[in-house]
Amino acid sequence: MSHSDFPDRLPARSSRKGFLDALKYDANGLVAIVSQDAKSKDVLMLAYADRNAVEKSLKTGLMHYYSRSRKKMWLKGESSGHVQKLVGMYVDCDGDAILAKVRQVKAACHMGYRSCFSFRIGKDGKMRVVGKKLFDPKEVYKK
Amino acid sequence: MSHSDFPDRLPARSSRKGFLDALKYDANGLVAIVSQDAKSKDVLMLAYADRNAVEKSLKTGLMHYYSRSRKKMWLKGESSGHVQKLVGMYVDCDGDAILAKVRQVKAACHMGYRSCFSFRIGKDGKMRVVGKKLFDPKEVYKK
Repeated sequence: MSHSDFPDRLPARSSRKGFLDALKYDANGLVAIVSQDAKSKDVLMLAYADRNAVEKSLKTGLMHYYSRSRKKMWLKGESSGHVQKLVGMYVDCDGDAILAKVRQVKAACHMGYRSCFSFRIGKDGKMRVVGKKLFDPKEVYKK
Repeated sequence: MSHSDFPDRLPARSSRKGFLDALKYDANGLVAIVSQDAKSKDVLMLAYADRNAVEKSLKTGLMHYYSRSRKKMWLKGESSGHVQKLVGMYVDCDGDAILAKVRQVKAACHMGYRSCFSFRIGKDGKMRVVGKKLFDPKEVYKK
């Protein structure tokens, strides 16, 4: 394997700290994370993580993100129980986006759909729901 | 289908303009776009698009993005010929991220890999290349 097989912006690292240091965080200290069902390969959601959340995900094997609205780290599934177990983590050639292959308990979307991307857009802009609701948000988030 | 099947932040729209107006653009006027191979379901890349790029992608059937470094819209594949043909577009429950299922010509990554996410990170932070190079960037981008 030659040196140029690795991205310039993300040289090969041999430690967790090295990897976390090498990520290219945006002005808010975040990287984007795409989560994908490790089995069906459906894309589940797009969220953001700070350094701490990426580290927690690697250490615990449960996906953690950073909420831009609540301005804090969260464990995916902390209220709903719908956690994401990390199966494999991948980083992109720019070092600013992560792909997390996961085992998703129940459903990823807070609206009850398996995937957050449950709304198909036609070329004419028409939206239609393509996902099936797997839970009732009113029940799950009532506490 | 009940009203609550659609996200509050992205009410059902019946036109392309309506959809483009309803997207939740960030402070820089961008939404995130995950592209996925429509056949293999591999995640290919994560990029950003402004309103104009989303519209162009829907209208032309070829994926367009917005380059944050060059500060302009670009047609994916404009230099390399490695275009992405749009098969289906999906929006997420927050209205700020798009999933584009595409037919990718050759490879998505500028380094020559099929997917930009060709670098696996172990729990210990160790990186290893998991993709195979499908082209030589020096050849493709020499002009």
